[in-house]
Amino acid sequence: MLENIRIVMVNTSHPGNIGAAARAMKNMDLNQLYLVSPEDFPSTESSLRATHAVDIVNQAVVTATLEEAIADCELVIGTSARDRTMNWEVESPRQMAVTALSASTQSQVAIVFGRERTGLTNEELALCHKRVHIPTNPDFSSLNVAAAIQVICYELYQKAQEDVVPDVVKAEGDDRIATAAQIQTYHQHLSDVMSEVEFFGSNNPEKVLRRLQIFINRAQPTRRELNILHGILTATQRKL
Amino acid sequence: MLENIRIVMVNTSHPGNIGAAARAMKNMDLNQLYLVSPEDFPSTESSLRATHAVDIVNQAVVTATLEEAIADCELVIGTSARDRTMNWEVESPRQMAVTALSASTQSQVAIVFGRERTGLTNEELALCHKRVHIPTNPDFSSLNVAAAIQVICYELYQKAQEDVVPDVVKAEGDDRIATAAQIQTYHQHLSDVMSEVEFFGSNNPEKVLRRLQIFINRAQPTRRELNILHGILTATQRKL
Repeated sequence: MLENIRIVMVNTSHPGNIGAAARAMKNMDLNQLYLVSPEDFPSTESSLRATHAVDIVNQAVVTATLEEAIADCELVIGTSARDRTMNWEVESPRQMAVTALSASTQSQVAIVFGRERTGLTNEELALCHKRVHIPTNPDFSSLNVAAAIQVICYELYQKAQEDVVPDVVKAEGDDRIATAAQIQTYHQHLSDVMSEVEFFGSNNPEKVLRRLQIFINRAQPTRRELNILHGILTATQRKL
Repeated sequence: MLENIRIVMVNTSHPGNIGAAARAMKNMDLNQLYLVSPEDFPSTESSLRATHAVDIVNQAVVTATLEEAIADCELVIGTSARDRTMNWEVESPRQMAVTALSASTQSQVAIVFGRERTGLTNEELALCHKRVHIPTNPDFSSLNVAAAIQVICYELYQKAQEDVVPDVVKAEGDDRIATAAQIQTYHQHLSDVMSEVEFFGSNNPEKVLRRLQIFINRAQPTRRELNILHGILTATQRKL
């Protein structure tokens, strides 16, 4: 339901941030960008920074007021950088993703980002149903606006993907993990060669061999890797 | 333990991305930036985009090679944008945050980011113990490198705030995971012995050596295990 979620940027000063925001959105499969009274738009700088997301920039809806940009939305979430004196609930980006995606199944949702230096005003935040805050280092809390959009879109996309069966790469043939028996055979081969090269002097063979076994098992070699390791031992024996 | 986690940027073209990365880091309380052979650095563009994080840019450690940037790390995580043919495990940013923070309680950790257009090479990814992939829209998967750093640092900071640092058994002395430099030394020793026993016939040495490097890095040997493995090679050389 990501297509029902829009990103709203209020009064953005730098066109580069609009482009970077579009790119961040497209990476995370969001496509609706609304620009409330941008200072410098359209601009080549926006298009350059958008790279392959220039379509999002070109299709961006420009409005004069925040009210217009969110008019048809049933859920509006404002991003808030600082603690405000207003007594309102603030969600984490992860909570916000659940809230936004749930609402997006049946309505339009807006997530609103403020100006580069000053964020959203209290009046603008008051137009929002909920607020989201990205936790940051308290001594350096001002995220770049496109970076904040990247984080929010990332959380939305991750949550949206959770309903999808994860794409596990199926290993086949020699890329499969070796069986216990195959590892045991290798371990025996290794121990033979260690004897042949007189590795065990005053060392306790059992203890060292156990350590090696633990190491090899922990490493979970594939069949291909085990073949290479066997090959090294065989080459050593041939050379001897 | 965020102070033990470094961000490594490999061969960055645009100085603006270095500045944006520094800002993203500082917002999330990370401070160590390593730059492997940056194309244009130092640069006013880096400092401008860093805003109040210019200290991170000024203190960035510049190295000629990735090996130098990760030499003292016991855990190296590479970011991978695409499906690769190599058969390696890939963590989500959220899993990665747990992995990195657990390791950071007792050692240095590096998270490595590749070039703007092409990411990390397979050779560079083979130097990493683990890989992380930021899930994205499959039709538009290339994140800006600073945006990717923002997402990774965000996940690290959120996890660090949960302050449920998992109860890791503190490894000491030779039971500690080997550093990247120690593993590299072993890999060189192994490759020497493989030549000495004439392992490489019609095989492509590079491909086989890379597979072994991936295997060893994935296995994350302890210093004690690495000592045994060196011992086997040394015994073999003595015998020859």
